[in-house]
Amino acid sequence: MSDINQLVIATIRALAVDCVAKANSGHPGAPLGLAPAAHAVWREMKFNPKNPNWINRDRFVLSNGHACALLYAMLHLYGFNLSLDDLKHFRQLNSKTPGHPEAHEIPGVEVTTGPLGQGISNAVGLAIAQKQFAATYNKDDITISDNYTYVFLGDGCLMEGVASEACSLAGHLQLNNLIAFWDDNEISIDGSTKVAFTENVIERYRAYGWHTIEIPDGDHDLDAISAAIKKAKSVNKPTLIRLTTIIGYGSLVQGTHGVHGAPLKADDIKQLKEKYGFNPDESFYVPQQVYDYYSQLAAENQELEKAWDASFAQYKQKYPELGQELARRLKGELPAGWEAALPTYTPQDKPLATRKLSEMLLSKVVPVLPEVIGGSADLTGSNLTRTTDMVDFQHPSTGLGDYSGRYIRYGVREHGMGAIMNGIAAFGANYKNYGGTFLNFVSYAAGAVRLSALSHMPVTWVATHDSIGLGEDGPTHQPIETLTHLRATPNCSVWRPADGNEVSAAYKSAFESKVTPHVIALTRQNLPHLEGSSIEAASRGGYTLLPRENPDVIIVASGSEVSIAVEASKKLEASGTKASVVSLPDFFTFDQQPLEYRLSVLPDNVPILSVEVMSTFGWSKYSHEQFGLNRFGASGKADDLFKFFDFTPEGVVDRALKTVQFYQGKTVRSPLSRAF
Amino acid sequence: MSDINQLVIATIRALAVDCVAKANSGHPGAPLGLAPAAHAVWREMKFNPKNPNWINRDRFVLSNGHACALLYAMLHLYGFNLSLDDLKHFRQLNSKTPGHPEAHEIPGVEVTTGPLGQGISNAVGLAIAQKQFAATYNKDDITISDNYTYVFLGDGCLMEGVASEACSLAGHLQLNNLIAFWDDNEISIDGSTKVAFTENVIERYRAYGWHTIEIPDGDHDLDAISAAIKKAKSVNKPTLIRLTTIIGYGSLVQGTHGVHGAPLKADDIKQLKEKYGFNPDESFYVPQQVYDYYSQLAAENQELEKAWDASFAQYKQKYPELGQELARRLKGELPAGWEAALPTYTPQDKPLATRKLSEMLLSKVVPVLPEVIGGSADLTGSNLTRTTDMVDFQHPSTGLGDYSGRYIRYGVREHGMGAIMNGIAAFGANYKNYGGTFLNFVSYAAGAVRLSALSHMPVTWVATHDSIGLGEDGPTHQPIETLTHLRATPNCSVWRPADGNEVSAAYKSAFESKVTPHVIALTRQNLPHLEGSSIEAASRGGYTLLPRENPDVIIVASGSEVSIAVEASKKLEASGTKASVVSLPDFFTFDQQPLEYRLSVLPDNVPILSVEVMSTFGWSKYSHEQFGLNRFGASGKADDLFKFFDFTPEGVVDRALKTVQFYQGKTVRSPLSRAF
Repeated sequence: MSDINQLVIATIRALAVDCVAKANSGHPGAPLGLAPAAHAVWREMKFNPKNPNWINRDRFVLSNGHACALLYAMLHLYGFNLSLDDLKHFRQLNSKTPGHPEAHEIPGVEVTTGPLGQGISNAVGLAIAQKQFAATYNKDDITISDNYTYVFLGDGCLMEGVASEACSLAGHLQLNNLIAFWDDNEISIDGSTKVAFTENVIERYRAYGWHTIEIPDGDHDLDAISAAIKKAKSVNKPTLIRLTTIIGYGSLVQGTHGVHGAPLKADDIKQLKEKYGFNPDESFYVPQQVYDYYSQLAAENQELEKAWDASFAQYKQKYPELGQELARRLKGELPAGWEAALPTYTPQDKPLATRKLSEMLLSKVVPVLPEVIGGSADLTGSNLTRTTDMVDFQHPSTGLGDYSGRYIRYGVREHGMGAIMNGIAAFGANYKNYGGTFLNFVSYAAGAVRLSALSHMPVTWVATHDSIGLGEDGPTHQPIETLTHLRATPNCSVWRPADGNEVSAAYKSAFESKVTPHVIALTRQNLPHLEGSSIEAASRGGYTLLPRENPDVIIVASGSEVSIAVEASKKLEASGTKASVVSLPDFFTFDQQPLEYRLSVLPDNVPILSVEVMSTFGWSKYSHEQFGLNRFGASGKADDLFKFFDFTPEGVVDRALKTVQFYQGKTVRSPLSRAF
Repeated sequence: MSDINQLVIATIRALAVDCVAKANSGHPGAPLGLAPAAHAVWREMKFNPKNPNWINRDRFVLSNGHACALLYAMLHLYGFNLSLDDLKHFRQLNSKTPGHPEAHEIPGVEVTTGPLGQGISNAVGLAIAQKQFAATYNKDDITISDNYTYVFLGDGCLMEGVASEACSLAGHLQLNNLIAFWDDNEISIDGSTKVAFTENVIERYRAYGWHTIEIPDGDHDLDAISAAIKKAKSVNKPTLIRLTTIIGYGSLVQGTHGVHGAPLKADDIKQLKEKYGFNPDESFYVPQQVYDYYSQLAAENQELEKAWDASFAQYKQKYPELGQELARRLKGELPAGWEAALPTYTPQDKPLATRKLSEMLLSKVVPVLPEVIGGSADLTGSNLTRTTDMVDFQHPSTGLGDYSGRYIRYGVREHGMGAIMNGIAAFGANYKNYGGTFLNFVSYAAGAVRLSALSHMPVTWVATHDSIGLGEDGPTHQPIETLTHLRATPNCSVWRPADGNEVSAAYKSAFESKVTPHVIALTRQNLPHLEGSSIEAASRGGYTLLPRENPDVIIVASGSEVSIAVEASKKLEASGTKASVVSLPDFFTFDQQPLEYRLSVLPDNVPILSVEVMSTFGWSKYSHEQFGLNRFGASGKADDLFKFFDFTPEGVVDRALKTVQFYQGKTVRSPLSRAF
């Protein structure tokens, strides 16, 4: 190892250790063990610290996000917008260096990691997006995209099922632009990995269709790392490189789980720095040679971006149409007037399942928006997510599709799909990607959905079979708590459209979103198109669908229950009770409307009854009384179930009358009217 | 194949097809393909249809639960309490034959399946429980437990990450009592498995440490199935048997995904029955020879149970102490007076984190309750789930523990852990098992938690680091929506204890539960012991901790916010505002109290403010105003975060005063007072 390499690695290690020590919190073990690899990998990567969003940069994903002191040190040394001062505020409130790397907060962090298994799965998404992007825009004479995705992951990531799902798919898809380094340090929080993790990882990844390489001396063998990258770039598969390292290398407690998640002791830091030839009393020390060395590498990288800019300029001339499209996508803009493709409906149109309306919408919109790619977790025919002219995203050798295909066959892998969707969104180029499954099984992907919301990934879940209305499959498949869960997640837009216009509003919101994931809950059963619905009205998240002057009661409902509420209102009218009906397809959007508007929909002085055929939990935010299903469903015909649970116009009338009676003569405040 | 075998298999197939046809809904493909295997496996199994709960029965798990017409046919033919009439009501409302098998509803169904990947993972739990049970009670001269767990699973189960997690652990634990049959029919809902699932499953399972066997002609080769079982029983590993079958065997659409999830057409059923030599116009036909044949097998099995009963009688004499314990466990009773082991505290006791109090409780209770076994998903030192005298559950050859050990090292496999816990609970023998992870990562296991609740498995999640109070790990680890999600799940008890006595109440509820899973949310940070708390009071789920006469406001809180509320109340008192404090550690338990009691805690005429440092969603069920955190958290010191988000006595005082002011002179109804 040359002197400069040694110096760089020592600097990275010392910085990471100082970060954790200053914070008195964090994980020094993995940064110490992985510093040589980080150095060896990053010097092979192309990226521009001054433009972290360059579309053809190589991506680096730290799947073992707890090792982020390493990542922050690298970003600082390479000249990203992350100062020494930022490093000194590691893990402190409102710093740019939180305890786990957060993509939307820190330039140079590609995806938010920490919850194990997500990063490597995001990386599969980044690799899929790159292949799709390259196949769409590369020409024989001009290459727009040829970047790689590099990943560091630990034993914990390998144990997580989400990673198993994503990596099995990556093997199937032959993603040879994906290069993952397994930090094989044999330590996890419980101690030796021998207590729980004795499988043969290399054999498992070979079984997935990955190429594998083993580097026994990951603590020193930089050449082997460079050679492995070279080899990985030459094969037709994703590559897993087993990098055997010593956790906490150089520390007095190296090789133990004691070094995993607790700061090093002062004497340990002292001996480390002495070993490196650094002043043991100095913290956050960076030799000028290290800055100079990385500046030089960064400058070379900037030349690469300049060359790419020149190619792209040429591309726009030679391929004006694609060039324009690409330029638009890189600006993050949708094509002007795309909304014209959104279908609208009138009450005269045939009743249809909202999943069917979703399919009809996609068949109009997918051709107009090249950034929209979709898929399903093996429920294509049920989710109706694949329009007839979509091509499967597959390795061309399979004969089943090609890499320019826009439809991903995820297999029965909901959590993997969720994490891959995040990776596709994180790639940039305005990708708007959706994935289908039953609403109930979005829960399998809860870990990934949460990260979509936290890290501002505008992905879309096409979540069909959204209630007991799915019928015979029964309570194992019927969501009860699912919408509550998703609605309680910050920055998560959860639509449950009542008809065709509302389906259009939901997708409009989804595809226009830049920072908010969407879940669109859709029925299996047919619903009528409603008098009073429109894309515009629904786009406020909630609106008065059926107004009554001076109503005795307001019925607020979502999805399949809105038309039942309308029927109930008509019955009530006949018997002299005036019931307005409010459709509330998305709490998140509604909450963003001005209070004045919201109070016009859910005003004071009228009792409000909510109707939704699942958990009532949370509905008291918008209603005084709740009619819902606070138990698991049942297996049976959909109609029988709705009748059994009293979700009929008559059942709603009954609750509405009880509501009117109960509040008669009492002061009624809008639930939106609050003390603070 | 002998005539009787052919006749039995034809009968199973015809019954399954008739079920689906009569319902006009369901999955005929897998039952047709797996009928020979079901016959071949069940004739090797020991069980008693007249006593489905015999503790030493072999367990059968249909992980591909959509194939349940097959399971129902088998249960009927063997003489379980499932009539032909029940089969005729397949998938109908309130039938005993729902669309997916539900364990707590149907005798002979071991675990509830349908959501893919769960069954095989439950089976790993059943196998763990058997090993632990056998190692605890078997003696050289008397065998109490030696049963096997058999599983059918499909491609979908193999794609799910939860199954990967559980099967990796099963390999590590060398569970040679687990025999799984992979229905390798190359079809999933999206068509050929070639579109998404081309990994080498056999190699993957070998990498996990499983023995594997391949049976190329699963449609006919009964002898190979018998031989495979024999072989599986002789190896030191779990066994995966690849059974190559043709989906929908015999149907005109065999081998296509068209036969997977839709009823066969009438002419197809006709030709099938003709092929079997049955009257094509007769439905639900069972030849008497088939009943007789299975009755004979069942009778032989009943002899096995009788022999076991005799052994157990002998055991009780020779080993009276263990015998008594075992008899008690088989009755599903806890030892009399076990609650005496629950710690109690006074305000003079040292403030401690509730995770620490949980550890102290377990160290008292685990020795008293042999049915309690625990574990953690690689967070033992953080969850504090392993008491010092617990032995690891490990294969003895590892030198790390033995099969009588009561502590399971799950690895970083939360979803697998959740499904395995369900399997352990399903084994019977009163097993009360718990698993630890951070509260936020219970979401990774949402699929399994839901099934705990649906199928009445009394498992316990020790969910530590339950808020922003975990500090520096930041928003990727800080739960916001998690409690809302769990509280909205039917039959799920979600405790967030505020101090030591409430921790005891939470565990008392958990270990006494027979049908309800528990999540116990625990702090990382220290909390004081509260004046007014007691096991008895907390056991009502909610109670007035700090009463004030004619209060101006009631502050209701949970966990770490209760002591803040108490401080706030004291400050308010000083300035002339009377604020009672209600501790509400478990919504589920509180909801079960009589209305009168609940109204005594949250009465009319007093405004109620809830305080919980996470999503407010759902809290309006118990309060008029909510102080919470409807955004993601941040990375920083816990104290800094509580201050930043205003979760301090002063912050609560401020909201309480605003609440008092807002409701001044207005009528205030208890949120518990409802129209219906």
